[in-house]
Amino acid sequence: MIESKTSPRLFLHPDRLFPDHPTTRNIARRLYETIKDLPIVSPHGHTDPVWFAENAAFPNPAQLFVVPDHYIFRMLYSQGVRLEDLGVPRRDNGPVETDPRKIWRLFASHYHLFAGTPTRLWLDHSFVTLFGIDVRLSAQTADHYYDCISAHLGGANFRPRALFERFNIEVISTTEGALDPLASHQAIRDSGWKGRVITAYRPDGVVDPEFEGFADNLRKFGEITGCDTGHWDGYLAAHRKRRAYFKQFGATATDHGHPTARTADLGRSEIERLFARAQRGTCTPAEAEMFRAQMLTEMAAMSLEDGLVMQIHAGSMRNHNAGIFERFGRDKGADIPMPTNYVEALKPLLDRYGNEKDLTIILFTLDETAYSRELAPLAGHYPALKLGPPWWFFDSVEGMRRFREQTTETAGIYNTVGFNDDTRAYLSIPARHDVARRADCAFLAGLVASHRLEEDEAAVLARELTYDLVKRAYKL
Amino acid sequence: MIESKTSPRLFLHPDRLFPDHPTTRNIARRLYETIKDLPIVSPHGHTDPVWFAENAAFPNPAQLFVVPDHYIFRMLYSQGVRLEDLGVPRRDNGPVETDPRKIWRLFASHYHLFAGTPTRLWLDHSFVTLFGIDVRLSAQTADHYYDCISAHLGGANFRPRALFERFNIEVISTTEGALDPLASHQAIRDSGWKGRVITAYRPDGVVDPEFEGFADNLRKFGEITGCDTGHWDGYLAAHRKRRAYFKQFGATATDHGHPTARTADLGRSEIERLFARAQRGTCTPAEAEMFRAQMLTEMAAMSLEDGLVMQIHAGSMRNHNAGIFERFGRDKGADIPMPTNYVEALKPLLDRYGNEKDLTIILFTLDETAYSRELAPLAGHYPALKLGPPWWFFDSVEGMRRFREQTTETAGIYNTVGFNDDTRAYLSIPARHDVARRADCAFLAGLVASHRLEEDEAAVLARELTYDLVKRAYKL
Amino acid sequence: MIESKTSPRLFLHPDRLFPDHPTTRNIARRLYETIKDLPIVSPHGHTDPVWFAENAAFPNPAQLFVVPDHYIFRMLYSQGVRLEDLGVPRRDNGPVETDPRKIWRLFASHYHLFAGTPTRLWLDHSFVTLFGIDVRLSAQTADHYYDCISAHLGGANFRPRALFERFNIEVISTTEGALDPLASHQAIRDSGWKGRVITAYRPDGVVDPEFEGFADNLRKFGEITGCDTGHWDGYLAAHRKRRAYFKQFGATATDHGHPTARTADLGRSEIERLFARAQRGTCTPAEAEMFRAQMLTEMAAMSLEDGLVMQIHAGSMRNHNAGIFERFGRDKGADIPMPTNYVEALKPLLDRYGNEKDLTIILFTLDETAYSRELAPLAGHYPALKLGPPWWFFDSVEGMRRFREQTTETAGIYNTVGFNDDTRAYLSIPARHDVARRADCAFLAGLVASHRLEEDEAAVLARELTYDLVKRAYKL
Repeated sequence: MIESKTSPRLFLHPDRLFPDHPTTRNIARRLYETIKDLPIVSPHGHTDPVWFAENAAFPNPAQLFVVPDHYIFRMLYSQGVRLEDLGVPRRDNGPVETDPRKIWRLFASHYHLFAGTPTRLWLDHSFVTLFGIDVRLSAQTADHYYDCISAHLGGANFRPRALFERFNIEVISTTEGALDPLASHQAIRDSGWKGRVITAYRPDGVVDPEFEGFADNLRKFGEITGCDTGHWDGYLAAHRKRRAYFKQFGATATDHGHPTARTADLGRSEIERLFARAQRGTCTPAEAEMFRAQMLTEMAAMSLEDGLVMQIHAGSMRNHNAGIFERFGRDKGADIPMPTNYVEALKPLLDRYGNEKDLTIILFTLDETAYSRELAPLAGHYPALKLGPPWWFFDSVEGMRRFREQTTETAGIYNTVGFNDDTRAYLSIPARHDVARRADCAFLAGLVASHRLEEDEAAVLARELTYDLVKRAYKL
Repeated sequence: MIESKTSPRLFLHPDRLFPDHPTTRNIARRLYETIKDLPIVSPHGHTDPVWFAENAAFPNPAQLFVVPDHYIFRMLYSQGVRLEDLGVPRRDNGPVETDPRKIWRLFASHYHLFAGTPTRLWLDHSFVTLFGIDVRLSAQTADHYYDCISAHLGGANFRPRALFERFNIEVISTTEGALDPLASHQAIRDSGWKGRVITAYRPDGVVDPEFEGFADNLRKFGEITGCDTGHWDGYLAAHRKRRAYFKQFGATATDHGHPTARTADLGRSEIERLFARAQRGTCTPAEAEMFRAQMLTEMAAMSLEDGLVMQIHAGSMRNHNAGIFERFGRDKGADIPMPTNYVEALKPLLDRYGNEKDLTIILFTLDETAYSRELAPLAGHYPALKLGPPWWFFDSVEGMRRFREQTTETAGIYNTVGFNDDTRAYLSIPARHDVARRADCAFLAGLVASHRLEEDEAAVLARELTYDLVKRAYKL
Repeated sequence: MIESKTSPRLFLHPDRLFPDHPTTRNIARRLYETIKDLPIVSPHGHTDPVWFAENAAFPNPAQLFVVPDHYIFRMLYSQGVRLEDLGVPRRDNGPVETDPRKIWRLFASHYHLFAGTPTRLWLDHSFVTLFGIDVRLSAQTADHYYDCISAHLGGANFRPRALFERFNIEVISTTEGALDPLASHQAIRDSGWKGRVITAYRPDGVVDPEFEGFADNLRKFGEITGCDTGHWDGYLAAHRKRRAYFKQFGATATDHGHPTARTADLGRSEIERLFARAQRGTCTPAEAEMFRAQMLTEMAAMSLEDGLVMQIHAGSMRNHNAGIFERFGRDKGADIPMPTNYVEALKPLLDRYGNEKDLTIILFTLDETAYSRELAPLAGHYPALKLGPPWWFFDSVEGMRRFREQTTETAGIYNTVGFNDDTRAYLSIPARHDVARRADCAFLAGLVASHRLEEDEAAVLARELTYDLVKRAYKL
């Protein structure tokens, strides 16, 4: 491989993401040293339980790194690369590139686009630590990478379960829809493998009247549960049954992906009227919004009963690109954040359950303006509220810094819940947790260097941020 | 006290809150050295004039530090501590904890929650400088603290007036409602004590139709002033009378706590219609908003007449937590900021009075997004507008940094007005001013270190930010 | 000049705007060294083509620096200086100060107001590099400055064309309205001078029904083009003709200054209805908004045909100060930013043309909250979108830092387009580009110092940000 000689070296600097001043950097190093080897606790993400159930080899570098990663193909698409050429499947099953080496080369020749992005940090971390690569990815080194990664993927130590152990994962949660039979989770259990892979209850498909196939979903919801989902009480009973079923597979949390954080606390007759319209598919957008709003409050009520932690991921306009949605479907990098209000939106739910100490609602946002204005003040007051880590576009070095700088002074550290990798990119998990750990240590080092905190306190907080908070908040 | 030996040391590092790089830090140190001993000018706050009138000893550590401080009990409440257990009085006079040592211990055992918050900085500063404590507060040291603080509180040099002098306060403004007889202010005068304690006119209770007891307040407003507050002209005359009365007690400013910054400039008949509805308690929320909006413009008109500086504190949704409001009342840490618009909201008032050089309107926000987008552009143009310092949740190290970074390039330094401690926590006043002085010096040092400013200019600005601007802006 | 001895020295520190830590600063220095002498490419601005056509001397220091610069007079006005006293012409031709030395002295005596602002950086850069001044501007040095600058202005090397070459400008774009005959551009061509001065098509006056004189403008638009601008098809044809005409004078771009980023994709009959109402001047504000919205989509369609790059400058409430507008007219420092939504506003246009690789739409904002929430996610996905540099109030050191920190992680560097000086202050152009180059190098140095990027990559990006991106994005 001549390119490995002439191409720029790739390596991971031990001080990466730490502050530049030596005193502060040394504090960050010392803090990081105390927590870097703690197990990974991954309470929210989108890994595929099939991986752990079947423990099959990953197919090839393109299918592993490029084709499923919307962070990657959205950037290439923004610079004029066709999704077809990246092998992204079309809804109409029309032709797309199938040669993984070609896809990989196309990706490699655009790798410079990721300068300064978290994707670059995650990928380089994987390339070095998992594949021992020591040259930078580019058009010149594309084949070297392809061959090197391919050679590793066949090995027994690159199977999902082996990686699970190598990654030092203590527990990982997948996310499944309310109608999912959880067959892979059952298969994991049946296999006798001891890796702790749990599920989380994500009922959007049976809660959001605007979800594709909602009426059909409701019918299936009834079949699966044996409940009369044609009526409100039966519908709620079906949720309770499924939540209990998910708990059997380790679930400690639910997850709600709503366009807004709107909640409601409506009277019975209004709820039944909305439910009837939702069933018939005749909701106006405002009614659909109101139904979702009411359901957040219903879910909070059930969480008080069964102890499941509630996660609200609000503020994304899904499928903003009509053309991409039509040709390629959901989750193709075309979800765009919207301004999101929490202070009025959450009030109905909070009026009812905000003062409950035994309820935990974890809030996520894609509107960073809410950190200091709404989310930190809310979480710094209501016992039921906690702040989830920076989400999606903000799962990044600068995003994490802004989150801590804008929430800590009002909500403190203890109203936050540690890190979520929130990923379907399995190989990036250690990298993502490492970025978070380094960013947290850098933040804490800054507090110590400016004498807002002593270093022994920072060490306690570093451990809380890495391990303790997430275990407590998610009941893991 | 064995714990004072084994517990971590508490001390105030002389370089706290300064930048980490030695060159920049040394600039900050030198700037700070020139202004650290300037007198405290406190133009807006909520200290109780009774303290200065009666000059009685403060009761005990819990009543002094914990029970009245919503920064403290909101954080503990968010982590599951009951307000009753912190001795916060209930509206129904139901039982709450009355043993101050128990309250103090509960607080102390949760002190780690304040890591990284301004409350921690303020309290540690008081503990060290006022009580000579040298161990960190925790469950272990709670009794040591309690005893130490209690021992001091009885002393003559811990009386409010002695502290006033020790704190080097040149002038402090309290804030009183329009109906307040200012008896304590009269008593201060009558006492012959020379401490300059002035009042400020806060007419929300007779301006906001949604204020509890508004109609009753209007009636009292008429009685006190001898004006016919049943009619618009009489109502305005009553304001003029009270403003003049407040001026007799040193007032140089009014203060307006409104949910939004909305102003209006309505025709006479519409104003009278709104006023009539406000009196009868029949305003819709939109009408109440419009009445408040009109009153800001009326207050500006009166300020032009009588020279009182006008402060607008906009953007807080008061009493967000219905349950807490019902059980404990106002100001219990449950006020949450809202998105706040200034550019359209202030236009009616500015169209009328924005170009008046002899009018000063000081704007405060809880929506930091307005700094660079609306507030700095407005203050950098209109002669009548100035920017108040970072308010409430943003009266913090990071909050001050964001304020300067986001306003200076557009509005400069001279369209700001120095610092407000805005506190009812008397003992924290020196600490708060010290944080602001350090944060300002750190900001200026950064400008000098990056050669945007010379150090002699920064020294002038440091003094402006500490002393001169506030005196000029508030006419003190 | 005694004052040049006793007044503080003025000089430009070679490390200005670089980070304070030596390692990071040295990286910034090295990067800057590689790009500081690259030619200036100025793709968007407001210099007057008459300067280049006539090549006359600039009149005097006041007319050159003070009277036309709204950054300067807005700051002085905010501190109580009358615009009349700064020589700003009144609409009614009433008396204003005409003595340029008096105006200059007034400005000089307020120069301390600009501490920490970009105006200060730009002016000091001009004073030192163009006039060799070495004392700080103040009331004491005002006359020294005035005489020194005056002495230079007469010289042949201070004529616009000589400065063009001295500034190392490769190409500069002015901005002209759709009705402009481009006579100065013709004169530049006819003169045989080789400086590349091009125009850009700014059709607001014939696109915005709320523009002063819109109906009259439409009529002239028809006369100039020979198209029937009384009907929709003729109106569109007129645009096509003018765009082609502007292209003859080098235009590669259009520019659209709209109060919002709203776009529309209406049916033919609704468009014709709106157009008819716009012509008659009977549009409601909502209809005017909708017509502007539709026109952005029409302009995108034409850009696909003729290749002109489209710039959208959205979010300014023009002429916020009614009194100033009445007495002095437009562009008097009284334009105030508004909250601006892009995610919903741009959707109609993007649904139609967002996936076109051959279309370039450059987005600008005055609402920094949109950077991370909307603009970076949009530009990091849609092939047709790029992010313009920080605009207006954010064309500043801190503004540039926030822009990079809040957009790079999501949109990368390659979805941005380098720098715009966007100025009518000709002498500030080198200073503005220098600030941008330093700020970019400082940002990149931070990425290198924290090991997010290698220095060789940063050097490539520094060149992209200075020269390559702008040439490609604007097709220059």
